[in-house]
Amino acid sequence: MTGEPAVYLRGRMLPASEASISIFDFGIVLGATITDLLRTFNHHPYRLEDHVHRFYDSCKYARIKPPILAKETMRITEELVKHNAPLAGPGGELAVVYFITPGENFVYAGSAAAGGADLTPTFCIHSFPLPFHLFRRFFETGLHLVTPSTRHVPPECIDPKIKNRSRLHWWLAEQEAHLVDGSAMPLLLDLQGNITETSGSNFLLVKKGIVYSPAPRNILLGVSRKVVIELCSKLGISFVERDLQTHDAMTADEAFVTTTPYCMAPVTKVNGVTTGDGTSIGGPIYRRLLRAWSDEAGVDIRAQILGPQGPNSVASA
Amino acid sequence: MTGEPAVYLRGRMLPASEASISIFDFGIVLGATITDLLRTFNHHPYRLEDHVHRFYDSCKYARIKPPILAKETMRITEELVKHNAPLAGPGGELAVVYFITPGENFVYAGSAAAGGADLTPTFCIHSFPLPFHLFRRFFETGLHLVTPSTRHVPPECIDPKIKNRSRLHWWLAEQEAHLVDGSAMPLLLDLQGNITETSGSNFLLVKKGIVYSPAPRNILLGVSRKVVIELCSKLGISFVERDLQTHDAMTADEAFVTTTPYCMAPVTKVNGVTTGDGTSIGGPIYRRLLRAWSDEAGVDIRAQILGPQGPNSVASA
Amino acid sequence: MTGEPAVYLRGRMLPASEASISIFDFGIVLGATITDLLRTFNHHPYRLEDHVHRFYDSCKYARIKPPILAKETMRITEELVKHNAPLAGPGGELAVVYFITPGENFVYAGSAAAGGADLTPTFCIHSFPLPFHLFRRFFETGLHLVTPSTRHVPPECIDPKIKNRSRLHWWLAEQEAHLVDGSAMPLLLDLQGNITETSGSNFLLVKKGIVYSPAPRNILLGVSRKVVIELCSKLGISFVERDLQTHDAMTADEAFVTTTPYCMAPVTKVNGVTTGDGTSIGGPIYRRLLRAWSDEAGVDIRAQILGPQGPNSVASA
Amino acid sequence: MTGEPAVYLRGRMLPASEASISIFDFGIVLGATITDLLRTFNHHPYRLEDHVHRFYDSCKYARIKPPILAKETMRITEELVKHNAPLAGPGGELAVVYFITPGENFVYAGSAAAGGADLTPTFCIHSFPLPFHLFRRFFETGLHLVTPSTRHVPPECIDPKIKNRSRLHWWLAEQEAHLVDGSAMPLLLDLQGNITETSGSNFLLVKKGIVYSPAPRNILLGVSRKVVIELCSKLGISFVERDLQTHDAMTADEAFVTTTPYCMAPVTKVNGVTTGDGTSIGGPIYRRLLRAWSDEAGVDIRAQILGPQGPNSVASA
Amino acid sequence: MTGEPAVYLRGRMLPASEASISIFDFGIVLGATITDLLRTFNHHPYRLEDHVHRFYDSCKYARIKPPILAKETMRITEELVKHNAPLAGPGGELAVVYFITPGENFVYAGSAAAGGADLTPTFCIHSFPLPFHLFRRFFETGLHLVTPSTRHVPPECIDPKIKNRSRLHWWLAEQEAHLVDGSAMPLLLDLQGNITETSGSNFLLVKKGIVYSPAPRNILLGVSRKVVIELCSKLGISFVERDLQTHDAMTADEAFVTTTPYCMAPVTKVNGVTTGDGTSIGGPIYRRLLRAWSDEAGVDIRAQILGPQGPNSVASA
Amino acid sequence: MTGEPAVYLRGRMLPASEASISIFDFGIVLGATITDLLRTFNHHPYRLEDHVHRFYDSCKYARIKPPILAKETMRITEELVKHNAPLAGPGGELAVVYFITPGENFVYAGSAAAGGADLTPTFCIHSFPLPFHLFRRFFETGLHLVTPSTRHVPPECIDPKIKNRSRLHWWLAEQEAHLVDGSAMPLLLDLQGNITETSGSNFLLVKKGIVYSPAPRNILLGVSRKVVIELCSKLGISFVERDLQTHDAMTADEAFVTTTPYCMAPVTKVNGVTTGDGTSIGGPIYRRLLRAWSDEAGVDIRAQILGPQGPNSVASA
Repeated sequence: MTGEPAVYLRGRMLPASEASISIFDFGIVLGATITDLLRTFNHHPYRLEDHVHRFYDSCKYARIKPPILAKETMRITEELVKHNAPLAGPGGELAVVYFITPGENFVYAGSAAAGGADLTPTFCIHSFPLPFHLFRRFFETGLHLVTPSTRHVPPECIDPKIKNRSRLHWWLAEQEAHLVDGSAMPLLLDLQGNITETSGSNFLLVKKGIVYSPAPRNILLGVSRKVVIELCSKLGISFVERDLQTHDAMTADEAFVTTTPYCMAPVTKVNGVTTGDGTSIGGPIYRRLLRAWSDEAGVDIRAQILGPQGPNSVASA
Repeated sequence: MTGEPAVYLRGRMLPASEASISIFDFGIVLGATITDLLRTFNHHPYRLEDHVHRFYDSCKYARIKPPILAKETMRITEELVKHNAPLAGPGGELAVVYFITPGENFVYAGSAAAGGADLTPTFCIHSFPLPFHLFRRFFETGLHLVTPSTRHVPPECIDPKIKNRSRLHWWLAEQEAHLVDGSAMPLLLDLQGNITETSGSNFLLVKKGIVYSPAPRNILLGVSRKVVIELCSKLGISFVERDLQTHDAMTADEAFVTTTPYCMAPVTKVNGVTTGDGTSIGGPIYRRLLRAWSDEAGVDIRAQILGPQGPNSVASA
Repeated sequence: MTGEPAVYLRGRMLPASEASISIFDFGIVLGATITDLLRTFNHHPYRLEDHVHRFYDSCKYARIKPPILAKETMRITEELVKHNAPLAGPGGELAVVYFITPGENFVYAGSAAAGGADLTPTFCIHSFPLPFHLFRRFFETGLHLVTPSTRHVPPECIDPKIKNRSRLHWWLAEQEAHLVDGSAMPLLLDLQGNITETSGSNFLLVKKGIVYSPAPRNILLGVSRKVVIELCSKLGISFVERDLQTHDAMTADEAFVTTTPYCMAPVTKVNGVTTGDGTSIGGPIYRRLLRAWSDEAGVDIRAQILGPQGPNSVASA
Repeated sequence: MTGEPAVYLRGRMLPASEASISIFDFGIVLGATITDLLRTFNHHPYRLEDHVHRFYDSCKYARIKPPILAKETMRITEELVKHNAPLAGPGGELAVVYFITPGENFVYAGSAAAGGADLTPTFCIHSFPLPFHLFRRFFETGLHLVTPSTRHVPPECIDPKIKNRSRLHWWLAEQEAHLVDGSAMPLLLDLQGNITETSGSNFLLVKKGIVYSPAPRNILLGVSRKVVIELCSKLGISFVERDLQTHDAMTADEAFVTTTPYCMAPVTKVNGVTTGDGTSIGGPIYRRLLRAWSDEAGVDIRAQILGPQGPNSVASA
Repeated sequence: MTGEPAVYLRGRMLPASEASISIFDFGIVLGATITDLLRTFNHHPYRLEDHVHRFYDSCKYARIKPPILAKETMRITEELVKHNAPLAGPGGELAVVYFITPGENFVYAGSAAAGGADLTPTFCIHSFPLPFHLFRRFFETGLHLVTPSTRHVPPECIDPKIKNRSRLHWWLAEQEAHLVDGSAMPLLLDLQGNITETSGSNFLLVKKGIVYSPAPRNILLGVSRKVVIELCSKLGISFVERDLQTHDAMTADEAFVTTTPYCMAPVTKVNGVTTGDGTSIGGPIYRRLLRAWSDEAGVDIRAQILGPQGPNSVASA
Repeated sequence: MTGEPAVYLRGRMLPASEASISIFDFGIVLGATITDLLRTFNHHPYRLEDHVHRFYDSCKYARIKPPILAKETMRITEELVKHNAPLAGPGGELAVVYFITPGENFVYAGSAAAGGADLTPTFCIHSFPLPFHLFRRFFETGLHLVTPSTRHVPPECIDPKIKNRSRLHWWLAEQEAHLVDGSAMPLLLDLQGNITETSGSNFLLVKKGIVYSPAPRNILLGVSRKVVIELCSKLGISFVERDLQTHDAMTADEAFVTTTPYCMAPVTKVNGVTTGDGTSIGGPIYRRLLRAWSDEAGVDIRAQILGPQGPNSVASA
């Protein structure tokens, strides 16, 4: 396993090349997969407890019992990062993925009830190097968000507070957003027309010096979003949760998204309309928060992404 | 490939043991998978055109372009069945699965937009022997349906008219139903409290000689359901689509589900309440329809499932 | 009034240049305007009774009492058309507009209640030549419909079955559609994600030889749509009303819109996806209906619009 | 222009008698009009920046670009008030109206798409004397609010946070309220049954010393409401935003509305039920706030409205 | 029991004066009561089977098991009517009431779960003379229906297809309707703004010769409504179920309600607006149906109600 | 009346055995009953003002006017408790019930409008000994809450902020919960899938040291819940109101219900999943609050319920 990234699967640490999932796994057949994703700063897992606890809460809700305790998962994560991080190269960082499914069994033949009796969950921890080169443009030109007609799945169907892989609506929303702009990202509305999140990040906006977030009902309670809440508190910036609508996003002074892989990226257009006065990529509140975050992480987040050292290969770590 | 089932994957016919999907495939990472499933009767694909056309309609909606035309898919299906069916053994039948995903690419790093530029769809056709032994109890004791608090995903999020694999809500609904009865199947309501479908089959009920179906808004337009519509027409039975509620299901004279693997199975309880007068497993309308279907298929559907010849192994065909 | 079009306003027939509305009219201040619009064929009002009766029904609902009876309105329409039609030039046709408002009064100062006591409705009938040159491209290339995130106003707020002028949502929806394609038209969804209508026309689709319309809840009961229902009946084509979703529009065999000014125009794309197999502008059912309509109207509808005789000037008739 | 009020229209200052709008203007045909309204105190514009900034935010959302910058609009407002205010007479005050439409073009022929290519927005600033005599009874007897069955248009259709003129639902709601009481004002509920606003003012209630407002989702963020928030803060009164229902309005200790023309008026009945204990017109919190507001404005608001000097004529200023 | 009406309660036939219900009965404490009501024509139960079967279906849904079979209930009804009808006097008719509750137990102390273990249902059949004098004005002047802001309870909460006694919303709706007109009856809308029913009767309207009913989702499937469906079929009148809105009710040619006690009564006003052309109390379709119904019942329904023989006393029969 | 509990009914104090309600009372026929319930501590009414004021607010909303003033109701309550409490025996406590109905009249014959003219409300105050033996298991094993598919009635139908007796949905929800576990209690969701309350108590949860409550829209503003808010404030525990979903309840650290009869009881399972880490019946925050409450009440609440002195008889006091 020396030169190859390690994967933790079904209780064992394996070389990535030996890890595989059955096509009859419920995770694949139903998208019944609970997941989480953290990143490293300087080759150390960031907010490890937050991610693992959220993952275990999601499992509890979905009634898929992880085969090991949260503490053991943290220990294995540390071990996996220690082995895999050097493979990401100098200046590289890792994403670590957790996922669990109800398990592999004879086929989902019309109903899980048919063969659901005695499943053994499929639990996996793996990593890959963060593709900084793909994030560069978010920082160079900012994001263009588009509200598609496809709506976010509501919590009474699949609660977005559990990080999961039944996200066809994200794909559909992205196709709609790409009709407007090939590099746009969808900002999904909920069934009452309130703003939720993009297909993979939390959305925040700034109006008159206050940071506003959608209420927690219809969004992932992102760990990066939590970091922003803490930084706002530290910097004396008000952070308010409430129902927001497209109007609020289109008339905001600033807007940005938060997500584990690239922390925070500025929004520069919503539905084709320039955010704020359009004079810079990322407004003053965004820049204060990013600076404070970089200090806390011990890494210049923006520079790391824009720098030449981002991995360009797609080899999984 | 002689003794092993064939799988059609990425344009080639392979032995099943050589077919695999990347864990970075969007189908796995997002559940962004379009699928369909047909079965054989007497080792011949049943309603091949219906299934393939629905699959291509779903792909069109999801903007995932299959690499080959519908006609070619039908031809390959015939070829695959010819090769794999004998492996299902005498008296066995096949299920044939189609699935397609946006493709495999560098990771879905927070947003498909990051690396979504030039994906090649993953398109696969594979088969497995129908596990008749798992269906036996549906015909021996009938189904117990339970309405869970988890609701069906609405069409403005992910249209249930496209057969897809973002179905975590089905898993969640099943866990709720199993709290009531370990062998129960969930009957999901939509967001307005109307009946939709179970986690894998259409639901129909009979009241005063008329067959009622939920309106098409929130259900898969099942091919088996379509067969029932045709048989109703042939037998002079009225078939009516309209919004149905739990009350209708609990006070029906008869109820049953339709689904490709086992065609039609009787419902004998809804939320713990006996369907109809409880004197038989499957009422008179159900039995007429099943008989007519068996005639059309050239197979005694019930006898085939209850008979000793059902495959008990889980070897994929 | 000889060389100038006539306008019927506040009980009198006036030259267009002498007709004006106060900026304190409730129709302008609140958009509280009931309207209708008919067209001529060969300089004769088409479906005069249908339009006038719908207008009077809308007025009844809105509690704005027209100062004259429906019969008198029809008589004045005939008179107005007789005077104005010749001014549309050879080959030209007229649109005739009815509108009525609660009236002109002292300002809507925070609440209509303030000064709403004794209003005299503003009732007007005027006409303009149909701008065929603007419709040409609908027939040459077909329409591209886009489902915007802006939703149709529901009937419990402002019933779309009353033709009215509180349509800012149409403007907003158009701006969203134009982000995708500068010549696209929005196809608005209702609050449950069902298809309603475009910003000015009814939407119909064809699947397997059947014409489907959205249910009447959320749409104008268009007179042109009614003509299509009658023609379907005459031609033996099934016409079915039911809740339709974006999926239905994107996987239809054909689709088209109906509207008074240009009768019927083919849809060739929905959300960027080609309608049907894309081999022609308007499918076989569309063409049969348009032919039958032309026969009924005594005018080749398509030829009239595509022909060189369409008015290019914007002088109001 | 000496003896006549000035109107700013299409870039020029005109005498009111020369200002007119085409009946083909989209603002009239579609109600696609963005508007705002401020008032003077002692012949000076009050909260000029707040009104102008809201107006520009609304324009941004609606994608109608004002031909001049916000600063220039403020300058012209000052100029217009200086010219028109003296015409309101001693003791009179002005309302200043802003409105903008997509512009005047050839007709909205079935779809704005038809001729929407190159519109020039119609932008107007005009004024009229505040009709204090119409407001007198609000202060003398208080308001009777009635919740009609007509619901407020939701933000996913037309966001009430943009001040606009597609308000037929206000007219309809008023007709319903007048069935109960010819001088009643409607208090519209949203689609979930929460209180929103009246047809032209914000609604606030008091329970146990706390001022409650509906959450901002479904209401205009009124400038007068903002004044009340500031006054509450200054006076040490809690101001809480949350979803309110009819029950809250009918069991409140006090209730009142806020609106630019008459600032604040007490509510004395809701759905026929006396507000509070019915012992006075306006409760103690209302009176404290009104006094503080009068101090801030330098005008006794109530006395000005009740006094003999209110304009009785309807001549526009 | 000779001179006194009989009541069937807890398995025994009792004189009315000896029948009483505990104030700790769940029917009283929770309104958890299933009920039904039939009437006699010429002292014979009308549509006895329809009423009893609906009652038993409702009980099945509510999981309250009647202590006797449906057949026995019909037998007892006949017996009760035979005894009580003569007490209604000549020309009088009876209403027969069924009701059942979960039973009487120690108190519902915060939760039925507390003491819900072993309840014995309270089942009662009683009668009273139909108070024709109260119905007279419905036939003399017609009904005024008002749509209140209070909405009908949806089927996912309490299905209106089960006749029950948790109807506080009916009381609330009536209070709102009475604000408009002391003799008005509320016509409740559902949560999407569709018409449902009044507080005690089904609503039907006529437009261009077709009878329209709200879809069955949100209404009691009234036995009188079913009679109208049968009569329409016999008379060749189309009967269509679909979502109807206030607009449809206010622009109908005719409207009427159906209900067991007085069969059918004409609607002459909706929200203050005259129904149809206002020339008669009850339109031509209404009159044809009432005549046909009278023929079927063997009683002139209208004459019986308007005649002098209606009971004026309130003594229960 | 010496040895028998007193009941206040229709203006007079009666022995319980002489108090009865007509079966034609609207409270019984419609469930149109407003109610409230308080308890004693050490034979003294607890939070008497809170309960009586809520009751009077509910009456105001429902337009049922109590025949006496709130102060008089409080005086009678004190008198009734003084007489009845000794009958509850040593260690016993009373529940005091208020209820009022529109009154008794001739039957609700199809519509209250028929005979609603001049009703006299039925107003009653009675008491019963708190059945502590029924509450014991709540404290010994904790509660199992189950989210049923039946939803809570929304405030636009019957506002749950008024304590009333139209609660068939509670009964239906309990039947569903009992399918899972015969001793489970339903936790009802609202129409958007948010948590509301159980069938008789408020629900609160604890996450990371903060107490969360559903927003007030869809719940009774319980007096016991108010006590918890006050105790939280006193103990320095944050209390937050916001929309909560099933996910929040299933992943909470602690959960409990509050209700007048037994104050606070711990939740140990939600939908079959153990609450918190399952190590104790009631978590640390729950225990702190209960201790503080016992101090305030002067009674060890838990000991009183678990002690041997609880009344086991069902004799009403």
